[in-house]
Amino acid sequence: MSRQVKKRSRKTGLPPGSLIHIGDQLIEKTKITVFDYDESHIQEKEIRAVGECREYKNSPTVTWIHVEGLHDTKVLEELGTIFGLHALTVEDILNTDQRPKMEDFCEYLYVVLKNFHNHTEESKEITSEQISIILGPQFVISFQEKETGMFTPIRERIRNGKGHLRKAGADYLAYALIDTIVDNYFTILEQVGELIESLEESLVKNPSTKTLQAIQNLKRDMIFLRKSVWPLRETISGLQRTGCKLIHASTNIYLKDIYDHTIQVIDTIETFRDMLSSIMDIYLSSVSNRMNEIMKVLTIIATIFMPLTFLAGVYGMNFKYMPELEWHWGYFFVWGVMIIVAISMLVYFMKKRWL
Amino acid sequence: MSRQVKKRSRKTGLPPGSLIHIGDQLIEKTKITVFDYDESHIQEKEIRAVGECREYKNSPTVTWIHVEGLHDTKVLEELGTIFGLHALTVEDILNTDQRPKMEDFCEYLYVVLKNFHNHTEESKEITSEQISIILGPQFVISFQEKETGMFTPIRERIRNGKGHLRKAGADYLAYALIDTIVDNYFTILEQVGELIESLEESLVKNPSTKTLQAIQNLKRDMIFLRKSVWPLRETISGLQRTGCKLIHASTNIYLKDIYDHTIQVIDTIETFRDMLSSIMDIYLSSVSNRMNEIMKVLTIIATIFMPLTFLAGVYGMNFKYMPELEWHWGYFFVWGVMIIVAISMLVYFMKKRWL
Amino acid sequence: MSRQVKKRSRKTGLPPGSLIHIGDQLIEKTKITVFDYDESHIQEKEIRAVGECREYKNSPTVTWIHVEGLHDTKVLEELGTIFGLHALTVEDILNTDQRPKMEDFCEYLYVVLKNFHNHTEESKEITSEQISIILGPQFVISFQEKETGMFTPIRERIRNGKGHLRKAGADYLAYALIDTIVDNYFTILEQVGELIESLEESLVKNPSTKTLQAIQNLKRDMIFLRKSVWPLRETISGLQRTGCKLIHASTNIYLKDIYDHTIQVIDTIETFRDMLSSIMDIYLSSVSNRMNEIMKVLTIIATIFMPLTFLAGVYGMNFKYMPELEWHWGYFFVWGVMIIVAISMLVYFMKKRWL
Amino acid sequence: MSRQVKKRSRKTGLPPGSLIHIGDQLIEKTKITVFDYDESHIQEKEIRAVGECREYKNSPTVTWIHVEGLHDTKVLEELGTIFGLHALTVEDILNTDQRPKMEDFCEYLYVVLKNFHNHTEESKEITSEQISIILGPQFVISFQEKETGMFTPIRERIRNGKGHLRKAGADYLAYALIDTIVDNYFTILEQVGELIESLEESLVKNPSTKTLQAIQNLKRDMIFLRKSVWPLRETISGLQRTGCKLIHASTNIYLKDIYDHTIQVIDTIETFRDMLSSIMDIYLSSVSNRMNEIMKVLTIIATIFMPLTFLAGVYGMNFKYMPELEWHWGYFFVWGVMIIVAISMLVYFMKKRWL
Amino acid sequence: MSRQVKKRSRKTGLPPGSLIHIGDQLIEKTKITVFDYDESHIQEKEIRAVGECREYKNSPTVTWIHVEGLHDTKVLEELGTIFGLHALTVEDILNTDQRPKMEDFCEYLYVVLKNFHNHTEESKEITSEQISIILGPQFVISFQEKETGMFTPIRERIRNGKGHLRKAGADYLAYALIDTIVDNYFTILEQVGELIESLEESLVKNPSTKTLQAIQNLKRDMIFLRKSVWPLRETISGLQRTGCKLIHASTNIYLKDIYDHTIQVIDTIETFRDMLSSIMDIYLSSVSNRMNEIMKVLTIIATIFMPLTFLAGVYGMNFKYMPELEWHWGYFFVWGVMIIVAISMLVYFMKKRWL
Repeated sequence: MSRQVKKRSRKTGLPPGSLIHIGDQLIEKTKITVFDYDESHIQEKEIRAVGECREYKNSPTVTWIHVEGLHDTKVLEELGTIFGLHALTVEDILNTDQRPKMEDFCEYLYVVLKNFHNHTEESKEITSEQISIILGPQFVISFQEKETGMFTPIRERIRNGKGHLRKAGADYLAYALIDTIVDNYFTILEQVGELIESLEESLVKNPSTKTLQAIQNLKRDMIFLRKSVWPLRETISGLQRTGCKLIHASTNIYLKDIYDHTIQVIDTIETFRDMLSSIMDIYLSSVSNRMNEIMKVLTIIATIFMPLTFLAGVYGMNFKYMPELEWHWGYFFVWGVMIIVAISMLVYFMKKRWL
Repeated sequence: MSRQVKKRSRKTGLPPGSLIHIGDQLIEKTKITVFDYDESHIQEKEIRAVGECREYKNSPTVTWIHVEGLHDTKVLEELGTIFGLHALTVEDILNTDQRPKMEDFCEYLYVVLKNFHNHTEESKEITSEQISIILGPQFVISFQEKETGMFTPIRERIRNGKGHLRKAGADYLAYALIDTIVDNYFTILEQVGELIESLEESLVKNPSTKTLQAIQNLKRDMIFLRKSVWPLRETISGLQRTGCKLIHASTNIYLKDIYDHTIQVIDTIETFRDMLSSIMDIYLSSVSNRMNEIMKVLTIIATIFMPLTFLAGVYGMNFKYMPELEWHWGYFFVWGVMIIVAISMLVYFMKKRWL
Repeated sequence: MSRQVKKRSRKTGLPPGSLIHIGDQLIEKTKITVFDYDESHIQEKEIRAVGECREYKNSPTVTWIHVEGLHDTKVLEELGTIFGLHALTVEDILNTDQRPKMEDFCEYLYVVLKNFHNHTEESKEITSEQISIILGPQFVISFQEKETGMFTPIRERIRNGKGHLRKAGADYLAYALIDTIVDNYFTILEQVGELIESLEESLVKNPSTKTLQAIQNLKRDMIFLRKSVWPLRETISGLQRTGCKLIHASTNIYLKDIYDHTIQVIDTIETFRDMLSSIMDIYLSSVSNRMNEIMKVLTIIATIFMPLTFLAGVYGMNFKYMPELEWHWGYFFVWGVMIIVAISMLVYFMKKRWL
Repeated sequence: MSRQVKKRSRKTGLPPGSLIHIGDQLIEKTKITVFDYDESHIQEKEIRAVGECREYKNSPTVTWIHVEGLHDTKVLEELGTIFGLHALTVEDILNTDQRPKMEDFCEYLYVVLKNFHNHTEESKEITSEQISIILGPQFVISFQEKETGMFTPIRERIRNGKGHLRKAGADYLAYALIDTIVDNYFTILEQVGELIESLEESLVKNPSTKTLQAIQNLKRDMIFLRKSVWPLRETISGLQRTGCKLIHASTNIYLKDIYDHTIQVIDTIETFRDMLSSIMDIYLSSVSNRMNEIMKVLTIIATIFMPLTFLAGVYGMNFKYMPELEWHWGYFFVWGVMIIVAISMLVYFMKKRWL
Repeated sequence: MSRQVKKRSRKTGLPPGSLIHIGDQLIEKTKITVFDYDESHIQEKEIRAVGECREYKNSPTVTWIHVEGLHDTKVLEELGTIFGLHALTVEDILNTDQRPKMEDFCEYLYVVLKNFHNHTEESKEITSEQISIILGPQFVISFQEKETGMFTPIRERIRNGKGHLRKAGADYLAYALIDTIVDNYFTILEQVGELIESLEESLVKNPSTKTLQAIQNLKRDMIFLRKSVWPLRETISGLQRTGCKLIHASTNIYLKDIYDHTIQVIDTIETFRDMLSSIMDIYLSSVSNRMNEIMKVLTIIATIFMPLTFLAGVYGMNFKYMPELEWHWGYFFVWGVMIIVAISMLVYFMKKRWL
């Protein structure tokens, strides 16, 4: 549950713009890679000193600076100074419990998104990392907490130079990054969908308290996802509507596409929530059905044997004068009565459909 | 549940506009039929090579190209090139997990709808297929995943030339297609309504866990339908409000009609959901009533026989000095006491209305 | 439940404007009555041939044509032609599963409403019929499925010529008709209110599964009413806001009055739904209280008699050497022990407030 | 429940503007009091004949006419005529089941409010009366069903002439009346709050079906209050926004104050509803906990005594050859076994935390 | 629960602007501290007589007057007169049950906020105090009910003169105060988050009625927090949108930051509510699982021993002619039968997975 409230309290009382990374350090060393390209040329390098980025600031070609690891606040501060980022922007990049949002600072657009990582062996819940994207006139800077290979396909597309990407501007690159993240949501949701399917089957076969726990975990995952994806809708539509010149009209249609995908993701999450509620209903009613079954067994046994035991008790009494005891076939006669009683009870239960 | 999340992950990492059909291949070969008509003439043919469509692009008469089967991406790509469709449009036609939507590309309108197929012997759930409609100045192109005869009545209306259809433009044809799909929803809902009615009756007669399963299945169907129909409202009202010249003012009143139908469909779905909840309530309370009944039987039996068995036990004791045992009528006297106890218990239960 | 989805499927595949009455024939013969009046004169007659209506179309006096029975589509078609009604309007009049709505066709306003009939001996549910009202410049045409006397008071007001009605125009007549229908909702709701009140009382006295059935039926009635009344709000406020000249400014204040009444009806329906939920809660918790009571009786009986029966069993054993059996007062001593055990059990239950 | 649907049916079929008081007669005789004041003078008298009011209509001083008792429709009709009230306004004053609303008739503003009376010994539910306020250029007319002393503080403020009231216009007087009514809501809610608090305590000490009944009654009160207070929000904000000259700009800030209070009242009602739901949850789960406790007692008793009784039964058998019976210490040995069985059962229950 | 409805009734019937503090006196003596600063100088002093504040009213430097303790209405009245506050503003400062709100009085802005104090040993619920902030052209006046050290970090920032605070105007100071309060919410929520986490764990280990009580208390805390934080959203966005010149454009971006934090707080509260509901679900289903387990034990014991006791009873009968009794190995044979019965019962329960 640590994902719910990160340690913001570290920041209480500090003036705004104080740079403190409130997440955990997930990577050993901050890693910065730069892609500089236009239709005809491409340059790719890993950067050691942040200062090396300065040359790309006003380059006429598109520059993509990708930063992995956010714990080194100095690196971020320097980058912020070079590219003229507002103090609050740098603070938000480090505050990794932002809601997805888009902010238009005129000289640049700042977009925050959540990337999800699925259930692994270590953690039984969906975790998220924050991805921040700065879109400037001719550059894109992206920040990520972990080192994942998720943007590798985009790197490949830049390298091999096919497709629209090399010809288009920085805004199209930013779109491509966002698109990759949103596409990843579908992967997460497919896996959740399979989990729900297997839950449903196991529920029919063998309902247990573990199933309940699993349902509750998935429910919580859905609450978590919804909380993170819901504001994305607003964010993307904000990107579409911003009067900002950084986004060309031709890119808008692609944003519309992402917007549609986002709504699909939200729809799917809602559907999953509905399905989980209905699985929960089935679980609860199967528990109460088991209860019924247990009660039935108890009642059948008790209802059959209580009269019989009573009868046996009667003829175990020690009265001096009990005529039946003297009868030669008395014992067998009582057995007969007992069998008749038992059978009529069984017939009664058959009629009541308890058997 | 496979209907919930189609295998979109096949597409992750690919650039936008990549043409991959994410549904299953539901038909052996893509089939293209063309209707070309105006008030006085009509031409109908099946097309082998996609190129044959080119001649219809600028024909002054209304052209309806109907494509069944979406797995052959090349056919779609070629059609897209001929009629000047945007790459994202062609991609959306193939991505058969779109929400219903309407997009205005100035030169053409793109409408996505869902068509439903009811419970069959093979599948116990309502399935859907995606139908895409392109409305151009003088042509309509429609895409369908399966080969169903659902548009046959429209073909008939074109052939026999009666009614408004032959006189009106391409927009009226598009309207007629959408109207047919929405009318089909009513058929689906009527069948669901009958299912719910029969469920209610079976619930009164003989509630079982199968009933529960059936209720849950219907609930899920309703979630599925709602998810698919809800955005249709927006879509149709989008068609009405679009400033686009492709839709004539005279067609608008017909779109208003479809809009009313869509709201009726949504209303009915909501009503069905309410009814299913109330059936669920009845089921649950009938289960707990059965439980009560079982407990009552157990309690009545136990309450009657426990004191009797105790009494029998008392006179089964082997004390040397037990005066009652010596009485001549002791045995019959005890029987009398037992009968009185049993009867007073029964009277007590009668008063409590347990019998 | 037949009220939920009328047989719209009869219409699937037909072109729009096809005239088919989808309700049942509720009256033997279509009956048309005409009122023609102004402040000084009044004419009232029953019409045989539809053509007779033609003379009233352009009469300077207010004309009210009331049609009862909708199964004869020819009559409606002819009326439509005479008064210049759009094909879709005539279709909607016949499609008696419309939601309440208002449509402005410039030359006339078309209003659809629902009229309700309460529980009768034949049907245990609230049924509805559709009432359509056409408001033209100097005429009102109203269509009703059944022959009910609900508009008789209006006829009387026209005949005796008192009040505002004879002086006012066609729009005031239309208002009077709608007002009568909405007033009728209050009558229905009062009866429902009384039903709920009697349900509550019977719940306290003697809860049974019949009560549950009755609650569920009323719940369904409320779903049904709400579905039909909710859009009325929109309809009436549409009438108020329409720029149409057919409604004079002086009538607007009366529409505001109906609007208030509609909201009151919706409020009352919502309140009834809340009350039914709370009755349902009481029912369920009274069922579980009964269960508790049953369990208590069982437990008390078992807890008292099990130790006693055990004791009796002990002294029924046949060991050779059992000293107690030899005691002279052993038997009475055991009785004493048994009575002490029983009493202490009872005291325990008194303390636990089970008795 | 009579408060839910008043006998509106009395009015069905009557033309609008028909004057019928649909509430009960709560006061013997209609009582009219007049205050006429400005900064320097004050006149206060009780009126016998309605005609006496006429002189105040155009007086330059502020006049407050307060009417208690609404059953005498003639009085109202005459007042309506003198002050030029619309027929629908007079009708609404008599229809005491109005929702709170504000209507701007240009010459005057008409405001309807609900006043609540708390639980008394006679009625166990919160009851309401309707208070109507007419604000004219220099007069305020207020109508109340009962004779309560609730406006006495305002009368005092007028009489002793301190404060803003005597200096301000009629709109400020109207504000003061509304403010008094809304302040009264807080009194009602405080009492409800105390009731809820005492309910909570009694729930912990001794849950009973009476508690359930009390929870349900409070729930219903909350539904009733919410229904009556919710539209007040709209009403007050309507007063603020009305372009009408009857309300001076300086009064607007006071209306804003009432608006805030109204929202606070709604907030509190919502909070109470949430609290009642949570009390209900506690009640239900305490009922099911009792059930558990009962079952535990039963199970412990049965589980201990059944094996013991069985053992006793075994040695009560009459087989000829049963070696144990011959043992000298057999009897005591069996007692030992029984005690061991009983103790191990108890240990088992201790481990399971049932004891 | 006293926090729900403070004793507003003290105010009923009083004219608006009556100064009565409706909270409890939480501090012995009202304490007023003044900070007067600009970039180059700073003056800090504690004030004895309110009149000393007068000199700061028109000082060109920024003045911050902080008032702790609200029970002394005279102090507030005098302050109000000095700084020209509206009577309603002073009344609202004393009415400590205000919802968060912002009011623009042109000459000054009035902001009401809630500050929360966490569970302490004395009170088991989250309590709140009201903080009012007046923002004038060059001054900020803040009012607080208790004496807490929460604004100490801001005092430090003013004293040491680093950062933006000394350079910026009064609006930035007001922002800093609000920011501190909102940051405090995160601290509260983190603690609640930890409580929920520990609740979840204790639920798995050892569910008890105390857990239920704790869940309900947290639920109520969430209702309370939500009620207080929800309107904050509106308040902050009101500050952003106000056309008022008191807030400079450069401060607006900081308000946007607070707005984001507020939404995060609301999100977290909603998430906590969802989590508490799901914990409640787990609790309830664990209670019903225990019930099932108890029933199972009872049923297993009863089902095994009832047939055995019956058998023992049979051979305890005293019939003269019972052949089995004569058999030499009869006794051991019966033991054998009993063991077989018991084992087959156990096998049956193993199959049913009850063991």
